[in-house]
Amino acid sequence: MKCIGVMTSGGDSPGMNACIRAVVRTAIAKGLKVKGIQRGFAGLLDGDIHDMGKRDASGIIQRGGTVLQTARCPEFMEKKGQVLGLRRLNEEGLDGLVVIGGDGSLRGALALHRMGFAVAGIPGSIDNDINGTDMSVGVDTTLNTIVCALDALRDTASSHERAFLIEVMGRKCGYLAAVGGILGGAEMILIPEIPFELEEVAQVVLDAYVQGKNHALIVVAEGARPDINRIAEYLRQHQVGFDVRVTILGHVQRGGRPSAFDRLLATRLGVAAVKELLKGNLGTMIGLKGAMTGTVPLEEATSHQRKVRDEYIELFNLVS
Amino acid sequence: MKCIGVMTSGGDSPGMNACIRAVVRTAIAKGLKVKGIQRGFAGLLDGDIHDMGKRDASGIIQRGGTVLQTARCPEFMEKKGQVLGLRRLNEEGLDGLVVIGGDGSLRGALALHRMGFAVAGIPGSIDNDINGTDMSVGVDTTLNTIVCALDALRDTASSHERAFLIEVMGRKCGYLAAVGGILGGAEMILIPEIPFELEEVAQVVLDAYVQGKNHALIVVAEGARPDINRIAEYLRQHQVGFDVRVTILGHVQRGGRPSAFDRLLATRLGVAAVKELLKGNLGTMIGLKGAMTGTVPLEEATSHQRKVRDEYIELFNLVS
Amino acid sequence: MKCIGVMTSGGDSPGMNACIRAVVRTAIAKGLKVKGIQRGFAGLLDGDIHDMGKRDASGIIQRGGTVLQTARCPEFMEKKGQVLGLRRLNEEGLDGLVVIGGDGSLRGALALHRMGFAVAGIPGSIDNDINGTDMSVGVDTTLNTIVCALDALRDTASSHERAFLIEVMGRKCGYLAAVGGILGGAEMILIPEIPFELEEVAQVVLDAYVQGKNHALIVVAEGARPDINRIAEYLRQHQVGFDVRVTILGHVQRGGRPSAFDRLLATRLGVAAVKELLKGNLGTMIGLKGAMTGTVPLEEATSHQRKVRDEYIELFNLVS
Amino acid sequence: MKCIGVMTSGGDSPGMNACIRAVVRTAIAKGLKVKGIQRGFAGLLDGDIHDMGKRDASGIIQRGGTVLQTARCPEFMEKKGQVLGLRRLNEEGLDGLVVIGGDGSLRGALALHRMGFAVAGIPGSIDNDINGTDMSVGVDTTLNTIVCALDALRDTASSHERAFLIEVMGRKCGYLAAVGGILGGAEMILIPEIPFELEEVAQVVLDAYVQGKNHALIVVAEGARPDINRIAEYLRQHQVGFDVRVTILGHVQRGGRPSAFDRLLATRLGVAAVKELLKGNLGTMIGLKGAMTGTVPLEEATSHQRKVRDEYIELFNLVS
Repeated sequence: MKCIGVMTSGGDSPGMNACIRAVVRTAIAKGLKVKGIQRGFAGLLDGDIHDMGKRDASGIIQRGGTVLQTARCPEFMEKKGQVLGLRRLNEEGLDGLVVIGGDGSLRGALALHRMGFAVAGIPGSIDNDINGTDMSVGVDTTLNTIVCALDALRDTASSHERAFLIEVMGRKCGYLAAVGGILGGAEMILIPEIPFELEEVAQVVLDAYVQGKNHALIVVAEGARPDINRIAEYLRQHQVGFDVRVTILGHVQRGGRPSAFDRLLATRLGVAAVKELLKGNLGTMIGLKGAMTGTVPLEEATSHQRKVRDEYIELFNLVS
Repeated sequence: MKCIGVMTSGGDSPGMNACIRAVVRTAIAKGLKVKGIQRGFAGLLDGDIHDMGKRDASGIIQRGGTVLQTARCPEFMEKKGQVLGLRRLNEEGLDGLVVIGGDGSLRGALALHRMGFAVAGIPGSIDNDINGTDMSVGVDTTLNTIVCALDALRDTASSHERAFLIEVMGRKCGYLAAVGGILGGAEMILIPEIPFELEEVAQVVLDAYVQGKNHALIVVAEGARPDINRIAEYLRQHQVGFDVRVTILGHVQRGGRPSAFDRLLATRLGVAAVKELLKGNLGTMIGLKGAMTGTVPLEEATSHQRKVRDEYIELFNLVS
Repeated sequence: MKCIGVMTSGGDSPGMNACIRAVVRTAIAKGLKVKGIQRGFAGLLDGDIHDMGKRDASGIIQRGGTVLQTARCPEFMEKKGQVLGLRRLNEEGLDGLVVIGGDGSLRGALALHRMGFAVAGIPGSIDNDINGTDMSVGVDTTLNTIVCALDALRDTASSHERAFLIEVMGRKCGYLAAVGGILGGAEMILIPEIPFELEEVAQVVLDAYVQGKNHALIVVAEGARPDINRIAEYLRQHQVGFDVRVTILGHVQRGGRPSAFDRLLATRLGVAAVKELLKGNLGTMIGLKGAMTGTVPLEEATSHQRKVRDEYIELFNLVS
Repeated sequence: MKCIGVMTSGGDSPGMNACIRAVVRTAIAKGLKVKGIQRGFAGLLDGDIHDMGKRDASGIIQRGGTVLQTARCPEFMEKKGQVLGLRRLNEEGLDGLVVIGGDGSLRGALALHRMGFAVAGIPGSIDNDINGTDMSVGVDTTLNTIVCALDALRDTASSHERAFLIEVMGRKCGYLAAVGGILGGAEMILIPEIPFELEEVAQVVLDAYVQGKNHALIVVAEGARPDINRIAEYLRQHQVGFDVRVTILGHVQRGGRPSAFDRLLATRLGVAAVKELLKGNLGTMIGLKGAMTGTVPLEEATSHQRKVRDEYIELFNLVS
């Protein structure tokens, strides 16, 4: 192996730049050449590819987003696109590829692996829904953003009497909502994994009012159904004591300076990915397994999306 | 004057606690007794009033919200409520009152002044719509929260191609949206003071797309019409190149640790308010006039709500 | 078991309040009474002990420091003090005790355990030097504080040519310095675990200067010898190209809002500690073992202090 | 006027990038060409000068430091260097120059003005010691950094009993120390403007101990004499009740994301500087005068360094 590529793909997450830095610098330290592929698989198909030196990885560890950018690439979901991608990799003289991204990106990496190309995947996603790793790059920063927003809401919530609904990201996974709710002192969490009735929500808010609490805080996962707008409408139509206010954090959750945890995780996974490629342990995702990094076949990593662990639901019920 | 009261009223704003601290400590330093009135005029009518010592003002300067809480009080908008309020002030042996709050709160203070009670007002509002002061307590912290959210959006916006709409507070005043837009690098600002057509908004987004920008960022004041949901709907129905995403910051903007500026402003206004009461300069609002504090009659402060200055619109057009 | 006590002891760390909250609420949820012991073992000997209800654990999760305060207690290092402590625990009707703190505090807990009292320990320390847990409560927040300071130094370091020495905490353990150095883009890390010569340090700074870098950043652990003042003096006496500037973060590293990670870790450990007491698994420290919580005998936890893992030294060498 | 230059000089301060952005974009909007001069007067003498387009000012408003870098330039303090600088300006075809920096930098600008070159100065300095402007670019961000550090110290200070000495920047001006002390809840401030005896400091710490306070916090300006190390030594030698701990924030105070206030101030001053050059109002510094921008001759701006206003000393005495 003489030359490897690195790309970020799918939704970006804080810490991706730290991961790029680690891949580039480790590869160079191991005597490899490195090329950066812009805009994920879309840039691969377009040949938007350039050499990266040690300096290209300087001054980026603290920045949100990804200097290699990302894009969606429907063409790469089809065999035709995948074959073209393989051709581009060969044209560029690449012997290996590190793909940093979520579920869909890792499936793209798996397709290349199945065609015989040497790939390593790194879980980059704020949703923490990737199978085979305890944490994905970006989750910790996002959780800090959510917790900070909840702290701010509680500041003002205590001053006058309101019920706050706050929508957080997470796609089909309730991790961010559940853990955010535990750490932000929410009265209730509404997540895709647990069905709920609008009456229950109204009852929780009403109970908080009747008990003399000066506010109620409800964290709603974006994947929860009914969605936040429907819930707000229902609460406003029914007498729940408090006025109802809505916050939708949106993509603010994807940005921001990456936290220490995400920088460290990204660095460890980036270093390990290059090492696994060099060892010939191909077609795997490098993940966090307890205190150490470890590998899992890409098939397994992409076999299904993780749900929030029951432990967190139990924690919420105990301490909230 | 031997004993004064202090209350926070209306929507809370970051820095109110620093203001309470300054009022309490200055009054004590000047030999006065101080009583805290909980929940604004509502707490006054209920007699929810207690002595405050130097220690009650300790450890609060860095906290968002207000330790005296706030509440709405429709009763106090009527003469009957105002007379009852006056009676309560007398029952408590209060010779003066400092009211920290927005437009409506200052009108309540004015009503007491007109009945002959010694009041001083302090502008506390995140909207910066209070007449007669350059800045109100809370505006700076809120602006920092908005700018931080815009920085995070731009991090992720540069990674993949999106148009972001973000709604910020400000009631009828476009200050937060306009200045936030200047400082956060927005492509467009939509504020109550300037009418706009949905087609114009679509054109700006489309232009950004056609020019090859990798995102478009639009800051929408909560008082802008049509509102953010209508704008998002329109952009999604018309071909503007980018996908559209919405963020509604909501009450997150009211919370958070107060900034240095707000703590200092609040401290200076709190100290000055007690001094003005002692000097017998009654029925005024203490505000920031340039580099110094100054006073303005409550009549003038509440005569109308301020709009955003033209300077900021011009600044936006020049540097964005 | 009907009534348990909880205390924080030794140096405080961010997240201790989240831990207190979890212990109090879990105990109440399990039908126990809870008493808070102020100022660690010193407060125990003085009988500074009070009942805690669910409300006493409200609104504290986001606050740095510890609402139960801490203090040193030399008396409790001797048998006489320990026996008096046991007597106080019995006088208060306590059947169990949760001790949150570092090395010395856990040794205090072990002494009580050996006298037959039911104790559980929780590792609270910013130094990450406690044996038997992957992370201690407070480490993550401290690391974020350090990384934030290093980011700020790099901002200004790139603007004009300087060598910066920054001292970080960690006692005899180089974890904070090593990981901070990796994540903050330092040129060199100086830690107690690895001896170094002043000439080497001067050479690294000189090399950076000669290679045309616009700054050099060196992270110095407080336990490193020679210490930061001696290093600065040496660099100033020898020609190293750059001007030399010193930052000593000091106790700023112990404060601040706890991060999401520390709040979650503290909550999980607090919940688990109460459960272990109820299960009769006594005399253990509850720690983080990979993705899960686990227990280790207090003897083992206090047998020696952990050093920084070699993995981190290797990481630094690869990516810096 | 067809082409102007812009440079940052002296110590950098947060917000300088926002100022560069405003100068570049306003100049372009007014039909001018713009050139960036790297490393202040040193880069001018070296001819380190390049064209700047609208894009060069993109994505920099949120970054600390300065993309144009700064350097000291002893040669420019002498006539010979100044004449060479003038020659370079002419060689580059520059008709005007905007200098962003502190005292020394503005004196350099004045020298060029006296030789007939069209210059405008903008006060960039964290020390707030520049005459003729209410605030300099960078002061507000630095104050927020200091206040954040003081909040963190108080978190931990309340947990166990310590006296904290914290050194902050400000050169000969006590502004940062005085205002930081007011807003951060310090027991005492030690600044260059007010002589003090070591015994007084020891007395204040001892009084705090005797009164039962759980900590004492003293903010020491870097220009205060005796300096922080001497004070710490004295307190340790004399019985003051508390243990003594030292924090030296150092250059951390110069970095970090610029605050909203500094971004706005920098933007307004940058826009105004270009306008003044175009109006032919030459040789002035653009500053903040109350709520508006205004100009002052560079002679006046550099005639002396400002001291902290008495108002702040009085504020400290009233509210602390």
